[in-house]
Amino acid sequence: MKFCSQCGSPLCFKVPAGDNRHRFVCTECHEIHYQNPKIVAGCLVVHEEKILLCKRAIEPRQGYWTLPAGFMENSESTREAAIRETREEACTEAIISDLYTLTSIMPIDQIQMIYLASMATPNYAAGDETLEAKLFTEAEIPWDELAFETISTALKFFFEDRKKGLFPLRHIDLNSKKPTTE
Amino acid sequence: MKFCSQCGSPLCFKVPAGDNRHRFVCTECHEIHYQNPKIVAGCLVVHEEKILLCKRAIEPRQGYWTLPAGFMENSESTREAAIRETREEACTEAIISDLYTLTSIMPIDQIQMIYLASMATPNYAAGDETLEAKLFTEAEIPWDELAFETISTALKFFFEDRKKGLFPLRHIDLNSKKPTTE
Repeated sequence: MKFCSQCGSPLCFKVPAGDNRHRFVCTECHEIHYQNPKIVAGCLVVHEEKILLCKRAIEPRQGYWTLPAGFMENSESTREAAIRETREEACTEAIISDLYTLTSIMPIDQIQMIYLASMATPNYAAGDETLEAKLFTEAEIPWDELAFETISTALKFFFEDRKKGLFPLRHIDLNSKKPTTE
Repeated sequence: MKFCSQCGSPLCFKVPAGDNRHRFVCTECHEIHYQNPKIVAGCLVVHEEKILLCKRAIEPRQGYWTLPAGFMENSESTREAAIRETREEACTEAIISDLYTLTSIMPIDQIQMIYLASMATPNYAAGDETLEAKLFTEAEIPWDELAFETISTALKFFFEDRKKGLFPLRHIDLNSKKPTTE
């Protein structure tokens, strides 16, 4: 971030009056440009003991498997975002139940929300950003070919919790100064 | 948003190739400037049947009561953000238990997360952005002087749920095309 999105003038990086953090501030119009974490929303779709995974057609991690998920847009709810991403990436209509994982990924300023879901009808296919959409049993999960740590963590929690039949919200903090999962 | 934060050139508003939404795109360097919802995190602090509210010292809604909450910063987890905001606004150390409300406020592109919490020690005070911090019983809640609809909704759910002793995560979608609370 180098220029002011309001007036086009150069930015400086300083602590504004009354603040306690460095911000990008316009040298001309003095607009403060705050930066905040972005939300990624998606679904852990379960169908007859199997999980729906998508092989990524795009970078990062092209060719690796992930849960259908992506950046939340303005003017939608978290659940609408999770359903939309599942529709776009796996061409299926997710029926959402509970929020299951809430992961704070500090190094890249992302908050990932994964909802448990089923499919309205068991039809799915690869969307534009997906090479292949496929259902996997626990034994079939390609652990070494998962795209992201958040995905493997969510799946591990899921298979553990499924044994108990209880799916409490899982908070996962990745690369915090004090890493915690619960 | 009028100018590119990367190169300072004017932006246009168009659907980029391979996308299906209008975005701000630089007319010179072609950088796409995505806009995403911001997260507000805070705490519903309970102490001996009472709730901690803060009277706002700043706009919007100066002089009205709210739960301690504010914009999540980069490089922190959702729980760290809720604890930090409670410290800043009510000068107390929150001990967080469950995520309690997850509110999507579509018209202003905010996602609000409120955690149930207690206080490490029952000491609290007004922070810089607070005129007064005070504990309220249910009967004392100043319903007509609450700052935001999200706050009154969270408190109503809380007092209902407290009767049952169960506090499931409450999804609240405000001003959606299909408004839902559950």
